[in-house]
Amino acid sequence: MTGKPDDKALSRLLAGAPNNWGKWGADDEVGALNYLTANEIKAGMAAVRQHRTFTLGVPIGTASGDAVFPGRWSARHYMVADKSGFVAGHWHPLDGGLEFADDYVSGFAQAGTHCDALGHMWYDDTIWNGYSAHTTDGGMKKASIEPVAKRGVVGRAVLLDLARFRGKAVLDRAETFDHRDLMECARAQGVEIRPRSILLLRTGWVGALLRGDQKVGDGYWEPGLTFSLDLVRWFDEMQIPCTVTDTLANETTYERNTGIMLVLHGALMRNLGVLFTEMAWLDDLAADCAADRQYEGFYTASPVRVSHGTGGAANPIFIK
Amino acid sequence: MTGKPDDKALSRLLAGAPNNWGKWGADDEVGALNYLTANEIKAGMAAVRQHRTFTLGVPIGTASGDAVFPGRWSARHYMVADKSGFVAGHWHPLDGGLEFADDYVSGFAQAGTHCDALGHMWYDDTIWNGYSAHTTDGGMKKASIEPVAKRGVVGRAVLLDLARFRGKAVLDRAETFDHRDLMECARAQGVEIRPRSILLLRTGWVGALLRGDQKVGDGYWEPGLTFSLDLVRWFDEMQIPCTVTDTLANETTYERNTGIMLVLHGALMRNLGVLFTEMAWLDDLAADCAADRQYEGFYTASPVRVSHGTGGAANPIFIK
Amino acid sequence: MTGKPDDKALSRLLAGAPNNWGKWGADDEVGALNYLTANEIKAGMAAVRQHRTFTLGVPIGTASGDAVFPGRWSARHYMVADKSGFVAGHWHPLDGGLEFADDYVSGFAQAGTHCDALGHMWYDDTIWNGYSAHTTDGGMKKASIEPVAKRGVVGRAVLLDLARFRGKAVLDRAETFDHRDLMECARAQGVEIRPRSILLLRTGWVGALLRGDQKVGDGYWEPGLTFSLDLVRWFDEMQIPCTVTDTLANETTYERNTGIMLVLHGALMRNLGVLFTEMAWLDDLAADCAADRQYEGFYTASPVRVSHGTGGAANPIFIK
Amino acid sequence: MTGKPDDKALSRLLAGAPNNWGKWGADDEVGALNYLTANEIKAGMAAVRQHRTFTLGVPIGTASGDAVFPGRWSARHYMVADKSGFVAGHWHPLDGGLEFADDYVSGFAQAGTHCDALGHMWYDDTIWNGYSAHTTDGGMKKASIEPVAKRGVVGRAVLLDLARFRGKAVLDRAETFDHRDLMECARAQGVEIRPRSILLLRTGWVGALLRGDQKVGDGYWEPGLTFSLDLVRWFDEMQIPCTVTDTLANETTYERNTGIMLVLHGALMRNLGVLFTEMAWLDDLAADCAADRQYEGFYTASPVRVSHGTGGAANPIFIK
Repeated sequence: MTGKPDDKALSRLLAGAPNNWGKWGADDEVGALNYLTANEIKAGMAAVRQHRTFTLGVPIGTASGDAVFPGRWSARHYMVADKSGFVAGHWHPLDGGLEFADDYVSGFAQAGTHCDALGHMWYDDTIWNGYSAHTTDGGMKKASIEPVAKRGVVGRAVLLDLARFRGKAVLDRAETFDHRDLMECARAQGVEIRPRSILLLRTGWVGALLRGDQKVGDGYWEPGLTFSLDLVRWFDEMQIPCTVTDTLANETTYERNTGIMLVLHGALMRNLGVLFTEMAWLDDLAADCAADRQYEGFYTASPVRVSHGTGGAANPIFIK
Repeated sequence: MTGKPDDKALSRLLAGAPNNWGKWGADDEVGALNYLTANEIKAGMAAVRQHRTFTLGVPIGTASGDAVFPGRWSARHYMVADKSGFVAGHWHPLDGGLEFADDYVSGFAQAGTHCDALGHMWYDDTIWNGYSAHTTDGGMKKASIEPVAKRGVVGRAVLLDLARFRGKAVLDRAETFDHRDLMECARAQGVEIRPRSILLLRTGWVGALLRGDQKVGDGYWEPGLTFSLDLVRWFDEMQIPCTVTDTLANETTYERNTGIMLVLHGALMRNLGVLFTEMAWLDDLAADCAADRQYEGFYTASPVRVSHGTGGAANPIFIK
Repeated sequence: MTGKPDDKALSRLLAGAPNNWGKWGADDEVGALNYLTANEIKAGMAAVRQHRTFTLGVPIGTASGDAVFPGRWSARHYMVADKSGFVAGHWHPLDGGLEFADDYVSGFAQAGTHCDALGHMWYDDTIWNGYSAHTTDGGMKKASIEPVAKRGVVGRAVLLDLARFRGKAVLDRAETFDHRDLMECARAQGVEIRPRSILLLRTGWVGALLRGDQKVGDGYWEPGLTFSLDLVRWFDEMQIPCTVTDTLANETTYERNTGIMLVLHGALMRNLGVLFTEMAWLDDLAADCAADRQYEGFYTASPVRVSHGTGGAANPIFIK
Repeated sequence: MTGKPDDKALSRLLAGAPNNWGKWGADDEVGALNYLTANEIKAGMAAVRQHRTFTLGVPIGTASGDAVFPGRWSARHYMVADKSGFVAGHWHPLDGGLEFADDYVSGFAQAGTHCDALGHMWYDDTIWNGYSAHTTDGGMKKASIEPVAKRGVVGRAVLLDLARFRGKAVLDRAETFDHRDLMECARAQGVEIRPRSILLLRTGWVGALLRGDQKVGDGYWEPGLTFSLDLVRWFDEMQIPCTVTDTLANETTYERNTGIMLVLHGALMRNLGVLFTEMAWLDDLAADCAADRQYEGFYTASPVRVSHGTGGAANPIFIK
């Protein structure tokens, strides 16, 4: 790689790559979630054996500051009312004596564990399904998180524990994997990736961020899925509706050959309509799966329905 | 009712009412959610026949201002980056050419559809399970939304459409119902309230708020459940883990006889540990249930895991 | 007035009205503040006799919600740290034992008493000095509050107490006055409006808002200056650099004849470059001036320097 | 210095140091600003020769993030309305055609250049004038920024350019000076520090922060005034009302001998009632003073009147 890639590099790289625009109509705003039909919900429930639940959301508004992608800043939590405010006389009990604590949160719509709207990122001035990028001006008028939130994400999910598969606690900075690795990992785990499976891809990275072992800063480069045309075709043929990772951006930060950033946000999200669910907490689930060897389950996620939002916080549930 | 009730009125009213403190240990922070075991998850899945989903979250950060309980203020949505910002030169494409829209949300932790933490409201200086109300100072150290978010809410749910049952589009201001009405409504709907059922109680009120037919303001008085000792005993005996309503506060605003505010936040939430889920969107689900007469289903909800929070936004999923 | 004025009504109304674009160069961003030279500073100091000061800023972030122009919402104040947070263990003393209270404020850049940037409002797609309205996209690149904040506002000011002049505590809703009223008021007060005087125009309205006697809501219509071509010419000829009022918008809300909103934001601010300073607290100063009959003084104001901002909070000082 | 000082170290260090509590009555909340009488305003005006102004406020809400004291976070600026939002149809012109840009700012009350309230920091559970530290709970009830904002800060100021005096562009990390250095610097500059002078102390540090030459982070240690009992006595005897510095905290971060943090916030602010004005932009003023050798002038500052606030943003004006 020599020098920075120019502003048309991504467009050139993805010329001719698979594209689902128009597949679900000119008005579609949920993309590959269309694959999740009643059959997939049934398949998800059929994968449940123990009726035990895991939630995948990380805390937000932490006192020490949440980990966020470079350029964003941490969500913050403010108490508005608490017992000391009643003692101080700022607040008065409700009629009859009830008192309360109340609080305020501010942060990116994509704070903590969250789903990206399909229109969140683009190139060539065009977002998912061919809408103009100017539909983002002043608030998403197309392919916002609202239709995703209204639909919800429900189906059969498979956890692929790439870190354990490679014998590591955490994948390395900039370490990558692709669809062939996913298949090998599944085979080693004894679980089947089926068409329309929701993929939970564990790298251990969010754990490292939360523990402070990794930090966001100059030169930040996450491990994760890396681009190839074959990989994009595989996602397309397998009709993968949704990926869920324990990294901030669901893919490795740069393509190693060209230095292009976040290629799969272009290839999978913008072009195929795959829903990205980022910064999930997968360590507890993964430890449990390693113990009982059950890597499949029923998955539900439903982001907060932020009006005209580019994304929404979520706290997915995985039921084994 | 003559004059305002004094600050000890609620405490006197609930003296001797059922109380679950200590029932799940001195460290418990999730209360009646303990009733939701693997059996209840199994029962919830068994209630699914059509594998169709409904999400129950309302939009937040709307341009015209969200409806919020008196004393709070609306969540707000701000664009941080959009296509016009790239055109104006405030933003530059990522290496290779990807552009993005990004946005920020600020609002109460209990914005839009949300779950209350068990420690959100109290009397006698003591919150759920006997913790001191001073544990709320500067951030909830006990019975915050975090343990609830970590556990998730999963089980069999029953929709009780009180508005349709009474032949109304929307219940009236200050109109009430109690456990006997719930049982009659269930009977009329041909659905069974079983022990440990999650109860979705529809009044039509949120629809009226969203349409602007009702407004929050002076003298605001929601319809909803109203207190009696019998009602509290019924919730306790039925081991109801969670109620979900389409009002801002899950119960009628004042007890008619005494003028005491939000009695059930004391009797059910603080004393029994029942999880309150407020401002749910139930109109679409209710119309569907009226058509096919299937009022039971599988319910999942998992609030955003706000660190030390008094509540968290949620977008529950109901699967028929 | 019949029906609502169309979107070109203001443009037609002001065709041919005085315009200062280019007068101070193609790069100017402070407009009529250019009139405030060393001479005016000297004149302002010469007006001081008693060396007594008055500040003109209203509180912001009040617990009950600040009065704001329709469509905006109140600034809010959140404690981040206080003594109770130290007691609760959320905070720890600095090395050696110092403790602290800290807090956060969110609100419009034009919260409370504030100066408008010259580019804040426009018609015909063009802001002050002929810059494109698209320079506002994603942050003001031209005629923001920054050059105003960098320059500061310093000169001789005259208080014109229109309310007292008319024998009222507060002017009525929609009550208007024009330049001839200002001159008559000055004559009655025994003070001289000179070229380049800063004009403080008191209506009593902010006091009424703060007391709750007036409320912002449907049909809101402030008293204030009203448009005529003669008035605009008078402001131009008198080289008035800045007006300061105790209303939310520095002029009456609608032109009575046509129903056009905020005409003077077009005629004075956009076209002549006059700085508007809104929601000033003038009641204490006015009472003092009524007592000692000294209506002139030295005025300094300097808004917060909000990066790319449309305005900035200010707390002007008047020295008699 | 061996190990961290304990939580009583500051209290022990300042036992017996000068204290002004009660000097201006049991209800006083503005402390040494009481020294600024009509005489001082007159003296300030008498110092003006050229009638040229300098504003001392730094930009806030910058796109790259403002420099803030460790533990705080940057103020942020969000566009609410701009021309692109009108084009996109999120906004509609006012009656008659006026359009507008509007924006929102969130940040610490002590964002950018600001004044500290006298109650902002304390030890021994007691703030300025002997009020309980619990008066800070949920919002400052005593010694907030409100009385300071209401009074304003007006008087004769002297710029002491410590950096130039020492032949440096910027003082070094952790470099200190005391009252004797101030006197020597004044002598070298040919300016007189008189009783009740407002002191502007230039280190060059804010310039280094804004240029990115210095960064806030682990081990952050600003240059500035350093504690000695003699220094505190000098401030007391000279009746210094207010110091204004181009650092984030108005004093060197740690006392070198003991490691105690922010000693002068205890000794000068809490005990003597001296107003601290932090993060001022002094480089332009200093360059001008170096050229014309006029280091005294008239100073006005008036923080934003944040309700119950620990501080308020300010944009002071210095007139030569």
